Amino acid sequence: MIKAAIIGGTGYTGAELLRLLAQHPQVELVAISSRAEAGRSVTELFPNLRGHYDLVFEDPKDIDFAEMDVVFFATPHGVAQATVPDVLSSGTRIIDLSADFRIRDQALWEQWYGQPHQCPELISDAVYGLPEVNRAEIKDAQLIACPGCYPTSVQLGLLPLLKHEGAVNLNTIVASAASGVTGAGRQASVGTLFSEVSDSFHAYKVEGHRHLPEIEQGLTDLAGEPVELTFVPHLLPVNRGIHTTLYVDLLKDAADDVDYQTLFEAYFEDEPFVDVLPSGQLPTLRSVRGSNMCRIAVQRPLNRNKLVIAVVEDNITKGASGQAVQNMNIMFDLDETMGLESVALAP
Amino acid sequence: MIKAAIIGGTGYTGAELLRLLAQHPQVELVAISSRAEAGRSVTELFPNLRGHYDLVFEDPKDIDFAEMDVVFFATPHGVAQATVPDVLSSGTRIIDLSADFRIRDQALWEQWYGQPHQCPELISDAVYGLPEVNRAEIKDAQLIACPGCYPTSVQLGLLPLLKHEGAVNLNTIVASAASGVTGAGRQASVGTLFSEVSDSFHAYKVEGHRHLPEIEQGLTDLAGEPVELTFVPHLLPVNRGIHTTLYVDLLKDAADDVDYQTLFEAYFEDEPFVDVLPSGQLPTLRSVRGSNMCRIAVQRPLNRNKLVIAVVEDNITKGASGQAVQNMNIMFDLDETMGLESVALAP
Amino acid sequence: MIKAAIIGGTGYTGAELLRLLAQHPQVELVAISSRAEAGRSVTELFPNLRGHYDLVFEDPKDIDFAEMDVVFFATPHGVAQATVPDVLSSGTRIIDLSADFRIRDQALWEQWYGQPHQCPELISDAVYGLPEVNRAEIKDAQLIACPGCYPTSVQLGLLPLLKHEGAVNLNTIVASAASGVTGAGRQASVGTLFSEVSDSFHAYKVEGHRHLPEIEQGLTDLAGEPVELTFVPHLLPVNRGIHTTLYVDLLKDAADDVDYQTLFEAYFEDEPFVDVLPSGQLPTLRSVRGSNMCRIAVQRPLNRNKLVIAVVEDNITKGASGQAVQNMNIMFDLDETMGLESVALAP
Amino acid sequence: MIKAAIIGGTGYTGAELLRLLAQHPQVELVAISSRAEAGRSVTELFPNLRGHYDLVFEDPKDIDFAEMDVVFFATPHGVAQATVPDVLSSGTRIIDLSADFRIRDQALWEQWYGQPHQCPELISDAVYGLPEVNRAEIKDAQLIACPGCYPTSVQLGLLPLLKHEGAVNLNTIVASAASGVTGAGRQASVGTLFSEVSDSFHAYKVEGHRHLPEIEQGLTDLAGEPVELTFVPHLLPVNRGIHTTLYVDLLKDAADDVDYQTLFEAYFEDEPFVDVLPSGQLPTLRSVRGSNMCRIAVQRPLNRNKLVIAVVEDNITKGASGQAVQNMNIMFDLDETMGLESVALAP
Repeated sequence: MIKAAIIGGTGYTGAELLRLLAQHPQVELVAISSRAEAGRSVTELFPNLRGHYDLVFEDPKDIDFAEMDVVFFATPHGVAQATVPDVLSSGTRIIDLSADFRIRDQALWEQWYGQPHQCPELISDAVYGLPEVNRAEIKDAQLIACPGCYPTSVQLGLLPLLKHEGAVNLNTIVASAASGVTGAGRQASVGTLFSEVSDSFHAYKVEGHRHLPEIEQGLTDLAGEPVELTFVPHLLPVNRGIHTTLYVDLLKDAADDVDYQTLFEAYFEDEPFVDVLPSGQLPTLRSVRGSNMCRIAVQRPLNRNKLVIAVVEDNITKGASGQAVQNMNIMFDLDETMGLESVALAP
Repeated sequence: MIKAAIIGGTGYTGAELLRLLAQHPQVELVAISSRAEAGRSVTELFPNLRGHYDLVFEDPKDIDFAEMDVVFFATPHGVAQATVPDVLSSGTRIIDLSADFRIRDQALWEQWYGQPHQCPELISDAVYGLPEVNRAEIKDAQLIACPGCYPTSVQLGLLPLLKHEGAVNLNTIVASAASGVTGAGRQASVGTLFSEVSDSFHAYKVEGHRHLPEIEQGLTDLAGEPVELTFVPHLLPVNRGIHTTLYVDLLKDAADDVDYQTLFEAYFEDEPFVDVLPSGQLPTLRSVRGSNMCRIAVQRPLNRNKLVIAVVEDNITKGASGQAVQNMNIMFDLDETMGLESVALAP
Repeated sequence: MIKAAIIGGTGYTGAELLRLLAQHPQVELVAISSRAEAGRSVTELFPNLRGHYDLVFEDPKDIDFAEMDVVFFATPHGVAQATVPDVLSSGTRIIDLSADFRIRDQALWEQWYGQPHQCPELISDAVYGLPEVNRAEIKDAQLIACPGCYPTSVQLGLLPLLKHEGAVNLNTIVASAASGVTGAGRQASVGTLFSEVSDSFHAYKVEGHRHLPEIEQGLTDLAGEPVELTFVPHLLPVNRGIHTTLYVDLLKDAADDVDYQTLFEAYFEDEPFVDVLPSGQLPTLRSVRGSNMCRIAVQRPLNRNKLVIAVVEDNITKGASGQAVQNMNIMFDLDETMGLESVALAP
Repeated sequence: MIKAAIIGGTGYTGAELLRLLAQHPQVELVAISSRAEAGRSVTELFPNLRGHYDLVFEDPKDIDFAEMDVVFFATPHGVAQATVPDVLSSGTRIIDLSADFRIRDQALWEQWYGQPHQCPELISDAVYGLPEVNRAEIKDAQLIACPGCYPTSVQLGLLPLLKHEGAVNLNTIVASAASGVTGAGRQASVGTLFSEVSDSFHAYKVEGHRHLPEIEQGLTDLAGEPVELTFVPHLLPVNRGIHTTLYVDLLKDAADDVDYQTLFEAYFEDEPFVDVLPSGQLPTLRSVRGSNMCRIAVQRPLNRNKLVIAVVEDNITKGASGQAVQNMNIMFDLDETMGLESVALAP
């Protein structure tokens, strides 16, 4: 059994880790931390877990990291940075769900997150935990930087195209994305009250969202040359899920030579958590609720020079905690789908 | 492996059976029927199941019942009655999720369902599939009549009280219940359109809901004397879940001698799918979404002579398909929780 | 034109007052206060009001109450008490939407609200602003205590019965009520986040809600003898609206002599904001969204001895701000429906 | 008083016309038709209108069009075409909310709507009822073709840019739009059941939606040269509202010379129902619920060469019935805002 701890377990990614690990046959969750809720039982906060856990939230300083095989950080950005060196030095591996180690360019990180990085020397050691791109590196990593929720959907949706040289205009790609409200976290806030979010929908952070540099870094890696993205997130009145609609300008020379449906199907053929829908079908958010699956459709409307790619994932499963468990499975030589087989809850 | 078939697999209880059986290690779903969708693949209709099934809906007449160990009927009332004798004669066991065999009094059934019963000779053979009451009979039953969704919640919420002789007034009990919209089925209908149900809430069938005679039959069995219930269902703008609030008049003599919290906890102590919450906590609908768990709280406000019992269940899991699988597990000597361990999806 | 001010205008009752007064032809809103938002424009906080107001939130100490004809308090309980004497002494009339002056028994108020009353000498001067009961007193009142949202629905639903002597058991009435989330206010809180409330439903404050003593006071006044109520509120995943289902035990002697449909229709015949539905129809929450109307249905299921009464209102219109405007109209000799004629928004 | 009739009054645009006309001081609704509901009272179908109408649905053949000043068609496409000539010949003016006369190219209409046009000779007489573009022509029109809901939002969002010659690439514009479920109509259908739409979001008709040719016709008119649009609609789990996000490639030469905020504010300065938000604010769907207002924001993220324009409207108000009333006001020389002043319902 893998001994695991969760740091910062009271948010939605923490709750989702708890749900997934409860169903994982090879993991024993040994400890979970929360400064604010220290001493409170996990199931009092999350009654859906009654019967699955006896744990009590602990202050993080009371957790013995050396005892663990792996530690998950489900903390706001800026927190993991301060603790990661200690944990690593005890030989324990880390899966960080926060943004702390996702961006390789320290200055860029500091610009977008508005604070100095506390642990710059480890940035280059971190492996970006997108299995569909970095599976080999993940296997041996000591420190995984789990991708953001939006970045996961955008990168998976563009992966086959960017690997197919010369297919698309790299400077005009649009990602029009919509996320459920859990993406905004579990802290008290007027803007995410039910009475504010229900019956509504709106774009936000149009001028620049923190996931943009992460996505552009990833896309540029994939394409091998600079990619410029227009990324507009929207807030959906659902609790879980991300739907990303990608608009890509085809380069006229290449456009007609490619069967995009085949390109996508072939590219993801062996991926356990990427599902390319049959031609003509479009993915729904609820077809992935609570599952680690990402579903993708690609269409070329009216045979014009725009490609439309629709991508759905559960923002706190494949977009966060499910992907973290997928990384863990790879790191510990388990079947990659272990503990992640449950069917999406629909209706 | 248990070989199973589902008759009428395109409704929400059919979809939920598919979801649950996909995760059940001891069942092989061999066939699924739908007259309307015959020839269509199951995953085209329910894309959340992609990767889990290769089945195609068949016309029921093409299914060889003799090949099955068990057949689930997820059909509207009046359908199972016509086929049950044939299936039973082939030696195959039946779990009927419809209302066809729930009411022992044939005339009462015909009065509430407005049609003649087509198979009255088998009514008395049917076992009412509420494991918390009839576990022993279920084990050997050939024909299970799965309880309705509302009846499950009302009976479980009152069980300890009715078994505790002399505690309550049996003629003034109120069940004020609220169900998610899946309870109304998956057929096209204006009244259950999103645009009609969202932002709303209303009582319905106040003059008499078909589940009333089923509930009163069950409560009367439990109490050993006639129980009269006022049952008012309401339509909730959520897709899954039933919340039932029970109001019970305590008989003055008995009221103060009983610790109701202890009474409930003791009664359900060994039940795998009934969870009595700690004193002071109240159950939320979402704490059981997608799980087979029923959670119950009991309170006596201001120490007056009314007891308030709050019960939550997922209407298509413990209220239908999950309970059907629980019955199957009992019938086939499997662990009662097999395939039903998944954690409720919250958020 | 009536000159009006709103104290505490950043909550949902404040926002609703703003919406209603924007459409009122005889009111000029001169000032609105908020300590936290002082200096911010009203339409920046509430963009639906763009084009209707040029006001800026002010600190309450900067408002000249003597200039006003009426001041609305849309503040949390405990706030109005401290300011009411000053405002009244300037000759300005007050409509208090908070709980500060609703309960005549000072000790009872202090017990339920957990703090000393700061202005006990004015409690007896306050008129309880339920027009259907106190229209004459409201006309000349200097200080109106607007009823709570739940109390409005329960009292209106029971009014004809309690005025009809000897009809019902006064000790066993149940009010099973469900409110939209705006009832919980607009302050940041985890419990009312979209991600916590959506897909859910639950009872709360079963052990005793602050509206209980207010309701029992009102019902006792109506009946002329003590009434004991079991009141259980539930939280609905909608933003607006209250649905209350009342369960009443008929006294056997009286039950069969009364035609309850006729009793209710006759009682409310001349009320502009109470609508008794035709026999057989049940009210939906959305039929009153954004309107000041309260709709009621009464049914006696299976001719047994329970009466079921279903009541809907918009919790922040008839349950708060609309009722406040209705009171103002009465106080200032305007048509009672002025500014309140808009049709409920459905769908 | 203007005498009006509604043909096809049982859908959501019919219901919204009823709501708006109930509040219009210069209109008397004389008749409303529905073949299916003939003989039923309007308020039985739409209880939110109780107290506002005494009308009963009639068979359309029983309506005397000559008696009317104006007839609104709120029918599915293909219906108005058959009746329009008769109505016009009686001297009555027509406001058609359906798609029948929106597209000037008969062949294009027949291609997208899949049926022959029954009244091609009147197509060229119809005025496209977008007041912000065609106010003068609307004034004298006998037959108004009201714009579709999506086309209204896309055209208003692009109007200032297309009128500003040389600003943008006309061949790469993207409209990523999301509509509430009322846009799909009020007929029974599995796909728009609450249990299918809630907790979900998905693109649809990516291969080509019927509003595309209407939008391209309008944009081409505005630009004076061909415009090619990529239009992807999505289904939002709300009942009302459209949010359209427009992505436009700026032409490098022109981009830096233009202050887009000023361009938009100036263009719409005198429009009563187009509201350009202050720089930095983004519009929310709920800020226009139930109102005829369209709110727009324009941003140029990171000063790159994409312009992002966010547009919100209520799909059945400004996107349909409110715009129809706005057209009527213009046609009958009334104040353009008459009956349309009510504030959006938020929360």
